[in-house]
Amino acid sequence: MAVIARLSGSKPGSSANALDQLKELCAADLARVNQTIVDRMQSDVPLIPELAGHLVAAGGKRLRPLLTLASARMCGYQGDKHITLAAAVEFIHTATLLHDDVVDESDLRRGRETANAVWGNQASVLVGDYLFSRSFRLMVESESLKVLDVLANASAVIAEGEVAQLTTANDTTTSEEAYLYVIRSKTAALFAAACEVGGLIAGQAETVTNALEQYGANLGIAFQLVDDYLDYASSAEAMGKEVGDDFRDGKITLPVVLAMRRGDDEERGFWRRTLEDGEQNDGDLDHAVALLQKHDALSDTLIRARGYADTARAALSALPDNDHRAALEDVIDFCVDRAY
Amino acid sequence: MAVIARLSGSKPGSSANALDQLKELCAADLARVNQTIVDRMQSDVPLIPELAGHLVAAGGKRLRPLLTLASARMCGYQGDKHITLAAAVEFIHTATLLHDDVVDESDLRRGRETANAVWGNQASVLVGDYLFSRSFRLMVESESLKVLDVLANASAVIAEGEVAQLTTANDTTTSEEAYLYVIRSKTAALFAAACEVGGLIAGQAETVTNALEQYGANLGIAFQLVDDYLDYASSAEAMGKEVGDDFRDGKITLPVVLAMRRGDDEERGFWRRTLEDGEQNDGDLDHAVALLQKHDALSDTLIRARGYADTARAALSALPDNDHRAALEDVIDFCVDRAY
Repeated sequence: MAVIARLSGSKPGSSANALDQLKELCAADLARVNQTIVDRMQSDVPLIPELAGHLVAAGGKRLRPLLTLASARMCGYQGDKHITLAAAVEFIHTATLLHDDVVDESDLRRGRETANAVWGNQASVLVGDYLFSRSFRLMVESESLKVLDVLANASAVIAEGEVAQLTTANDTTTSEEAYLYVIRSKTAALFAAACEVGGLIAGQAETVTNALEQYGANLGIAFQLVDDYLDYASSAEAMGKEVGDDFRDGKITLPVVLAMRRGDDEERGFWRRTLEDGEQNDGDLDHAVALLQKHDALSDTLIRARGYADTARAALSALPDNDHRAALEDVIDFCVDRAY
Repeated sequence: MAVIARLSGSKPGSSANALDQLKELCAADLARVNQTIVDRMQSDVPLIPELAGHLVAAGGKRLRPLLTLASARMCGYQGDKHITLAAAVEFIHTATLLHDDVVDESDLRRGRETANAVWGNQASVLVGDYLFSRSFRLMVESESLKVLDVLANASAVIAEGEVAQLTTANDTTTSEEAYLYVIRSKTAALFAAACEVGGLIAGQAETVTNALEQYGANLGIAFQLVDDYLDYASSAEAMGKEVGDDFRDGKITLPVVLAMRRGDDEERGFWRRTLEDGEQNDGDLDHAVALLQKHDALSDTLIRARGYADTARAALSALPDNDHRAALEDVIDFCVDRAY
């Protein structure tokens, strides 16, 4: 539908490899995380592993737990608690996805029917609650109050971001600042916490854990900016979810914020009709993409993503220079250049 | 509609006073808990305190946080952490209510419109998540890993119970055992944890914390049995929610389990039509109540509640004999004899 804008300097095809390389570097740890996830989603109530397994089996990148694993290892951690924490991080993420799909009334996630489409909203809400509780159980096993504080806080911030997103939905007057608040909260907070707890469990000083937190936060913002770009610029097969979902849901993402700001009255009328009033007809999504391209709203979203990516890269320079740091640096490319 | 069965030995009118007496005994602490609840449900996202405040302002008995306060004080605790923990317990409960109402599609709670009826399911799911996260934040402040373990575990068990309840809904073959699993998990687990953490924070030995856990668990089962009884035997004004909700939702509670077991084929056909197939006509609720009475299903539900109440009372005997223990003993009467 739309042409994917590529930034100069990006290396097509290299970004997926960057994630694979990180996975390879952390392969033994990741296998233990996956086993922990499977073990801990069990329950005497069969519907719980059935529903949770549907989402977990669908794969997913395991990007967030990999951040925890690599952060801990980069800091020389030799214990076992990074495994438990990485599983906790993935459970928080999975619980959020389950509740997101209820909120968005989505039918497709990771290329499969969503859990709510198969088992209904009620089961998705409750199994999300279960996974969320299990994530806290796992965190408690870290026996670090600092880790618990960081992850409990991240969970609250995520929920705040999700509510804020609900508030800005269908509101075409949403500012870039309000949009940034939403993505910092709903996405970047967990990236940041996932990295920070890796350093905390390794007993690192505040300068190190702060740098990890900065790396994760900026990486998360870049990641979400690219996600919001892709929702207008990708294809369903590549994304594993429906293209134009944000448009259909009336979500106000940065491309729309920029196009609203740069558009004329007639164009703003179009955005209000389609996103605010929810009156969408055949061809509207194509017209939306055309307007976004006319105003460079898609390419500028990627340029902003690159800015946050650079900040993430800078944060890494304060950290131990080893294979794990190199892999974390390459992940930045993965997040920005995802060639779906 | 139905005549409320009274057990011999119950003192009409005394049970509400028992809760008032506990509230009076813990008045200073409870005021601090209420302030903590108001403080901690704040957020930069206005919809969060707005929606949470709707439910919190509607009142509620504050029974669970009172259990934490009284348990801690009974054990001679002189610090501040029981306040934070009591607020955490109430947040878990409030989050559960928000998600329950989404699951049940309820319109009325505590005599007011439910949050999901006013703000929609999406906001209720996400604000529930926020309160849940805040509860963990509060627990972390207790700085006791044992407390965190107990409350994180209770949260997971609650979610398991809620999912199990969803699984047994509309299934008239549900056994008494399966019903008990549901109420032990969804209700009694939080009562038990609320009491146990009061003893833990007071640094009590395992014999004491176990007795508190037993008291709470059995009190919680009795409480839920009475709730399920009242859903067929009360009036809307007294309950603050709609009578016959369980019947309309196809929930299989103990009165129905007993009536199914004791009924003839024609009667079982009635339960299957109304609860399994969801075909309900005018007069069906009245007929259901008549069948429950015919088979002593309502009065026997109360007799079972009395049994659990006795076990709760026995557990108290191992605990320090003081005003707070006396108040906790009186609460048993409140839970069983609630004269709605």
